[in-house]
Amino acid sequence: MGSAADAVIPACAGVGIAFALWQWFLVSKVKVSAYAAAAGNGGRAVFRPEGDIDEDVGVGYGDDEEGEADGSVAVARCAEIQSAISVGANSFLFTQYKYLAAFMVVFAVVIFLFLGSVHRFSTNSQPCQYTKGKMCKPALANAVFSTIAFLLGAVTSVISGYLGMRVATFANARTTLEARRGIGAAFATAFRSGAVMGFLLASLGLLVLYVAIKVFGLYYGDDWEGLYESITGYGLGGSSMALFGRVGGGIYTKAADVGADLVGKVERNIPEDDPRNPAVIADNVGDNVGDIAGMGSDLFGSYAESTCAALFVASISSFGADHNFSAVAYPLLISSAGIIVCLVTTLFATDFFKVKTVLGVAPALKLQLLISTGLMTIAVLVVTFSALPARFTMFDFGEVKQVKNWHLFFCVAIGLWAGLAIGFTTEYFTSNAYSPVRDVADACRTGSATNVIFGLALGYKSVIAPVFAIAVSIYVSFTLASIYGIAVAALGMLSTVATGLAIDAYGPISDNAGGIAEMAGMSRRIRQRTDALDAAGNTTAAIGKGFAIGSAALVSLALFGAFVSRAGITVINVLSPKVFVGLIVGAMLPYWFSAMTMKSVGSAALKMVEEVRRQFATIPGLMEGRATPDYANCVRISTDASLREMMPPGALVLLAPLLAGTFFGVQTLAGLLAGALVSGVQVAISASNSGGAWDNAKKYIEAGASDHAKALGPKGSDAHKAAVIGDTIGDPLKDTSGPSLNILIKLMAVESLVFAPFFAAHGGLIFK
Amino acid sequence: MGSAADAVIPACAGVGIAFALWQWFLVSKVKVSAYAAAAGNGGRAVFRPEGDIDEDVGVGYGDDEEGEADGSVAVARCAEIQSAISVGANSFLFTQYKYLAAFMVVFAVVIFLFLGSVHRFSTNSQPCQYTKGKMCKPALANAVFSTIAFLLGAVTSVISGYLGMRVATFANARTTLEARRGIGAAFATAFRSGAVMGFLLASLGLLVLYVAIKVFGLYYGDDWEGLYESITGYGLGGSSMALFGRVGGGIYTKAADVGADLVGKVERNIPEDDPRNPAVIADNVGDNVGDIAGMGSDLFGSYAESTCAALFVASISSFGADHNFSAVAYPLLISSAGIIVCLVTTLFATDFFKVKTVLGVAPALKLQLLISTGLMTIAVLVVTFSALPARFTMFDFGEVKQVKNWHLFFCVAIGLWAGLAIGFTTEYFTSNAYSPVRDVADACRTGSATNVIFGLALGYKSVIAPVFAIAVSIYVSFTLASIYGIAVAALGMLSTVATGLAIDAYGPISDNAGGIAEMAGMSRRIRQRTDALDAAGNTTAAIGKGFAIGSAALVSLALFGAFVSRAGITVINVLSPKVFVGLIVGAMLPYWFSAMTMKSVGSAALKMVEEVRRQFATIPGLMEGRATPDYANCVRISTDASLREMMPPGALVLLAPLLAGTFFGVQTLAGLLAGALVSGVQVAISASNSGGAWDNAKKYIEAGASDHAKALGPKGSDAHKAAVIGDTIGDPLKDTSGPSLNILIKLMAVESLVFAPFFAAHGGLIFK
Repeated sequence: MGSAADAVIPACAGVGIAFALWQWFLVSKVKVSAYAAAAGNGGRAVFRPEGDIDEDVGVGYGDDEEGEADGSVAVARCAEIQSAISVGANSFLFTQYKYLAAFMVVFAVVIFLFLGSVHRFSTNSQPCQYTKGKMCKPALANAVFSTIAFLLGAVTSVISGYLGMRVATFANARTTLEARRGIGAAFATAFRSGAVMGFLLASLGLLVLYVAIKVFGLYYGDDWEGLYESITGYGLGGSSMALFGRVGGGIYTKAADVGADLVGKVERNIPEDDPRNPAVIADNVGDNVGDIAGMGSDLFGSYAESTCAALFVASISSFGADHNFSAVAYPLLISSAGIIVCLVTTLFATDFFKVKTVLGVAPALKLQLLISTGLMTIAVLVVTFSALPARFTMFDFGEVKQVKNWHLFFCVAIGLWAGLAIGFTTEYFTSNAYSPVRDVADACRTGSATNVIFGLALGYKSVIAPVFAIAVSIYVSFTLASIYGIAVAALGMLSTVATGLAIDAYGPISDNAGGIAEMAGMSRRIRQRTDALDAAGNTTAAIGKGFAIGSAALVSLALFGAFVSRAGITVINVLSPKVFVGLIVGAMLPYWFSAMTMKSVGSAALKMVEEVRRQFATIPGLMEGRATPDYANCVRISTDASLREMMPPGALVLLAPLLAGTFFGVQTLAGLLAGALVSGVQVAISASNSGGAWDNAKKYIEAGASDHAKALGPKGSDAHKAAVIGDTIGDPLKDTSGPSLNILIKLMAVESLVFAPFFAAHGGLIFK
Repeated sequence: MGSAADAVIPACAGVGIAFALWQWFLVSKVKVSAYAAAAGNGGRAVFRPEGDIDEDVGVGYGDDEEGEADGSVAVARCAEIQSAISVGANSFLFTQYKYLAAFMVVFAVVIFLFLGSVHRFSTNSQPCQYTKGKMCKPALANAVFSTIAFLLGAVTSVISGYLGMRVATFANARTTLEARRGIGAAFATAFRSGAVMGFLLASLGLLVLYVAIKVFGLYYGDDWEGLYESITGYGLGGSSMALFGRVGGGIYTKAADVGADLVGKVERNIPEDDPRNPAVIADNVGDNVGDIAGMGSDLFGSYAESTCAALFVASISSFGADHNFSAVAYPLLISSAGIIVCLVTTLFATDFFKVKTVLGVAPALKLQLLISTGLMTIAVLVVTFSALPARFTMFDFGEVKQVKNWHLFFCVAIGLWAGLAIGFTTEYFTSNAYSPVRDVADACRTGSATNVIFGLALGYKSVIAPVFAIAVSIYVSFTLASIYGIAVAALGMLSTVATGLAIDAYGPISDNAGGIAEMAGMSRRIRQRTDALDAAGNTTAAIGKGFAIGSAALVSLALFGAFVSRAGITVINVLSPKVFVGLIVGAMLPYWFSAMTMKSVGSAALKMVEEVRRQFATIPGLMEGRATPDYANCVRISTDASLREMMPPGALVLLAPLLAGTFFGVQTLAGLLAGALVSGVQVAISASNSGGAWDNAKKYIEAGASDHAKALGPKGSDAHKAAVIGDTIGDPLKDTSGPSLNILIKLMAVESLVFAPFFAAHGGLIFK
C-alpha cells in the first residue's frame, strides 16, 4: 500500500499540472497581440506619455457604435492596456520579491540558530521524544532540514502567487475580447484562467511537499518524528510569504482603489476605470497583485500548513510508530483525490453545461461548489477506507486516543461541508440578491452614516453562523480524533481548493476585464457583459474569503494542537494567570494588526488622492479626455506605500510568538495563540462581510434591477453617493485587514510549532 | 475589630449620603422657577404645541444682544425647557421601569426555581461544600435569599439610575443660568450635580449591601458559605437592570441624536440643539436617560459585582473559616475609605481651587483623577494593615494559597493605578489636544470615507495599552492572591467611583446645559462657555467609558473565578473540545450583541430621520422659526424603539449562560465566559474610542483653535461635513454598543456565578 500512495500522489499532481496547462492553452487561443499588430498604432495614444492624442480616444467615452468601438482598434487598445497592467504587476512583484528574498535569508538564519541551539548545535543523536527507548537524529539536523523546508515553502508560495498573477494578466484582456462573442465565451475564458491558477497551485503544493518528504526521508530513514518535524518548516515558509503577499498586495490595491474612487467617482463624477483617472492602472494592477497573488499565497499557505500539522501528528501516533506510509500520507491522498474531483467539477462549468445568459453566471459558480463538495465526499470515503487501517491510535496531548477509520471520514467530511455552509452564509450576507445587503442599500436613503452603521451591524451579524459551523466541526472532529481530527477537517475544507481558487481568481479577472473594456472605450453592450461577470465575481470573492477564514480557523487550531503536542504540554489551564494573560493579549493582536493595515491604506490613499487631484488640476485637458494622465506616478505611490507599510504588521505577527515564547514560555504562548485565534476569526469575518456588503449595496443601486433599487439610484444620486462612501470604507476592511488576519492566526501558530523545541528547551526567561 | 468595621462602614456611607445632599442643596440655591414665574408667559411658546408664536422666539436665533437675550425671558425659557426634558426623561424611565418590574418578577421566579431545584426544594440542612464536616443551610434557603438579594440589587440599581437622572435634569438649566455669572460658577454647578449622583450611588450601594449582609446573617448565623453565596444575587440584580438601562437608554439617546443630526446638521444646516429641530427634546432627554441613568446603573453594577465576588471568595477562604468579619468585610472597608477620599477630592475642584477660565476646566477634571488615585493609595495602605491579619490563606481553585496582607495592598493598588493608566490612554486617543484625533480630523480633508477608515484604525490601536494594563494587573494580582486578588484589584479600580461618576455625569449635564442655552436663544457668550464645559465633558466621558470597561474586565474575571470556584472546577483546559468550543462561541457573542444594538439604533434613527424630514416638509414656517415642531412625536419614536429593541439583546445576554450551562455544562460555560471576556474588552474599547475620537475630531474642526483646525473648517465646510458623518457613525458605537458590552461580560459572569450550584448539580444535559 505504501507503493500505491507513492504512485497515486505524483500521478494526481501530474494530472493536475497537465490539466492546468491545457486550460492555459485553451485561453491562449484567444488572440490579442496579432490583432494589435494588424491595427497598427491606433490605440497607443492611451498610454503615450506625451504628444498628440488620437482622436479616437477622445470621443470614445460612452459612445455605443458597436463594431467601430469594438473593432481592431479596440483590440489593439486592449493589448496595450493589458501590457501596461502586466508590466506594472510584474515590476511590483519583482520589487516585492527582492525584499522577500532578503527576509527569507534572515529568517532562515533565525530558524537555523534557534533550532540548532536546542541541543547546542550538537551532532550527536538524541533519544526520541515520543518513541521511547529509540535514538533519533540530532536537533542540528532538524534545524538544517526545517530551514530547507522553510525555504522550499517560501519559494513555492512565491511561485504560486507569481504564476497566478501571470495567468490573470494574460486572461483579463482575452476575457474582454471574448465578451464580444457573448457572455458564455467570456465566462469560459475567465473561469478557465482561474482554473489554471487553482490547479497549478494545488498540484505544485502537493508535489513539492511529496518530493521533500521523500528526499528528506533519505537522510532520516525511520526517524519519522524528526522527518515530519522538519517538514513543518514548509508550512511556515508558505505562510510567511503569504503574509507579505496579502498585506503588501492588499495595501497596494486598496490605496489605488480608494484613491481612484474618492477623486474619480465622488469628486469628478467619472465612471469607474475611466482612462482619464490617473490611478486607474494602479487600481487594475492592484487587483492582480492583491486579490490574485495574495489570495493564491494565502490558500497555498493554509493548504501547506494543515497538511504539515496532520503529518506531524500522524508521525507521533500509531501510523508513525508502525511506519505505515500510506496511513501517514492520508492528508496527501485526500489532496490528491481533491485534484481529480475538482478537475471533473471544472468540466461541468466549461464543457458539460455552458453558461448562456447573464443570469446563468452566479448559479454556475455556486453549482461548482456544490458539485465539488458532493463528489469530494465520495472520494473521501474511498480514500479513507483504502488508505487507513480499521483501527489505530492518535496522540492526544500525552494520552493515546483510539480511533477508527470511519471516524476520520466524518472529520474530513464535516470540514468539507462546514466550508460549504460558511460559503453559503457568506453569500447570503454579501450578495445583493438577499435582504441583508438590500437593507444596507436602503439605509443609504438617509446618507452614508446610516449606511455605515447598517453595514457594520451586518458584518457583526454575519459572524454568528460561520462561528457555529466552525464550532461544530471542531467539537466533532476534536472529539473523534483529537488534534488529528481537526487537521484533517481543515484539509477536508481545503480539499476542493482548486475549484475554490478557480472561482476566486475568476472575480478579479472579470473585474480587470471590465476595466479594460472601459479603458479601451468598448461599447456599452460589452461592458454590460463584463459587469455581469464582475458582479457574480464579487459575491464569489466574498465566498472565497469566508472559506479562507473558516479554513484558517481550523488550520490554526490544528497547528496550535501540533505546537502544544510538540512542546510537551498536556494542559492549558485558563485558570492560570500565565495562560489568561496570553489569552487577553492574544485577543488584542488582531486589533493591533488591523489598526496598522487600515492606517496604512488610509495614509497611502490620502497620498493617492492628492496626486490624482493634482493631476486633474495641473494637466490641461485631462477631464476632457484630450490629455493622458501620468499613470506611472500613481503606480509608484502604491508600490512605495505597500513595500514600506507591509513591514510593521509583518514584524508584529512574526515577533509576537517569538517574544512570548522566549520570554514568557509555552503556556503564555499557548494562551496567546488561542486568544488570537478566537478573536481574529470574528474580526476577519465581520470585516470581510461588511466590506463585501457595502460593495454589493453600491452595485445593487447602480444596476437598478428592481423598483426598490431604481428608487435609490441612479448613479450620482445622493443614495448612490452614500453607497460609494460605504464601499470605500469597506475596501481596506475586506481586501487588506480582514483577509490578512487569516494569515495572522495561521502564521503565529505555525511559527510556534516550528520553534516549539526551542521554546520548550530555553523559553520562558521571565515567567519561569 | 469586627465591631470597628460595623461602625466604619455605615458611618462612611452616612457621610457620603450627607455630602451628596449638601451638594444638592448648594445646586438648588440657583433659582430657576422663581424667575420663570416673574417673567410670565414669555418663553412658553417654544413648547406650546399649536397656536401663536411669540415674536421673541422667532428672532432669537443667533442674535447676540447680551442682557436682553440672557434676561428674565431667557430664564423662563430655560425653566420651560428644563421641565420638558425632565418630564420626558421621567416618563421614559417610568415606562421602562414598568417593563423592568415585570422582568424582575419573572427572573426572580427563575432564580428561585433553578436554585431551589438543586436539592429538590428540600428543607433539610446539607453538608457544607468547602468547610468539611460541617452542616450548612439548605439549598432552598439559598434560593430564597439569592432571590431577595437579586431584588434588592435590582431595586437599588433602578433607584441609582433614577436619582442620577433627577439630579441631572435638575442641574442642567441651573448650569446654563450660572454660565451668565462665569465659567467657574457654571463648572461648579455641573460638577457638584455630578458629585450628588456619584456619592449617592457609592454610599447607597455600600449601605444596602451592608444591611443585607447583617440581616441575612440573622438567619445564616455562622454559615458564611451560604450567606455570601446568596449575597451574590445582589450583583446579578444590579447588573441585569444596568443592562436594560444601558441598552434601552443607549438606543433612546442615539436614535434621537443621530436622527436630529442627520436632518438638522447635514441636510438643513441648522446648529445642534436648534429648537426648530423636532428631535431636539428627545436628544436632550436621551442624554439623561442614556448617559446618566445608564452609566449610573452600569458602574453601580460593577461595584456590586466586584464586592460580591470578593466577599464570596473570602467566605470560602481562611477569613470565612476564622469568622473574621473585619477581614471578610475588607472590600466594604475599601469602598468606605473610597467615599471619604472622593469627598476630599471633590472639595479640591469646588472649594480649594476654583476654575476661573475655559482652559482650566479640563485640567481640573484630570486633577480630580490624580488626586483621588493618590489619596486612595494611602487609604488602601491604612485599611489593609488595620483590617487584615498579617498572613492568611485564599481559596485557589481547590488548592490553598498563602497570602500576606501587603500582597493585597499591591492587588488593590495595581487595580487603582491601572484604572488611571487606562483613563489617561483613553484621553490620549480621544482628546483633540493630541495627534491621534488630529490625524482623524485631517483625514476629513479627503472626505468621510478616509475619516471613517482612520477613526476605525484609531479605535483598534487604542486597545493596545489598556489591554496591557489589564494584563499586568491580572498577572500581578492573580499571582499574589489568586482570584481574590483579581476581585480586590477590580475594587481598587472602582474605589474612586464617586469621583469617577461625578466627572462622568458632569459631561451630559454640560451637554444639556449647552442645549438649553441654544434652545432658549441665549447669547453667544453663554453658549461659548457651555460649549467649553461640554468639550471637556466629552473627553472625560471617554475616560469614564475606558474606566468602566477596564473595571468590567477585572470584575468579570473575578466573577468568572468565583463561578469556577463555586462550580467546583479546578481546571479549564483549552485543549478540551468542550472548552474550546465555548471559547470561540463566547468570543462571537459581543459581535452578535453589537449587531443587534447597532441595527436597533440604525432602524430607530431611520424612523426619526423620516419623522424630522416630514415635519420640516409639512409644518409651514418651521425652518423660519415661525412654527413649533411636534417634539412629542420624536420622543415617542425614541421611547418605542428603545423599549422594543432592548429585549432581544437582553435575552441574548441572559439566555446564553443559562443555555450553555444547562445543556453543555460548566466547562463549556467557563469557556464561553472567558471567550466573551477577552473578545468583548477589545470590541468595547475600540468602539468607545473610535466614537469618542470622531466626536472630538468634529469639535476640533468646529472650534478652529489652531491654524490646522481653521484650514479644515469652518462649520459647513466639506471637511466639517465629513467629520459630522464620522461623529454620527460613532454615536451608536460609543454610546450604545460599546458601553453595553461591559455589562454583557459582567452580567454573563455574575449570572453564571448565581446559577453555578444548579449547573454543577443538573447542568450539561448534552455534553455529559
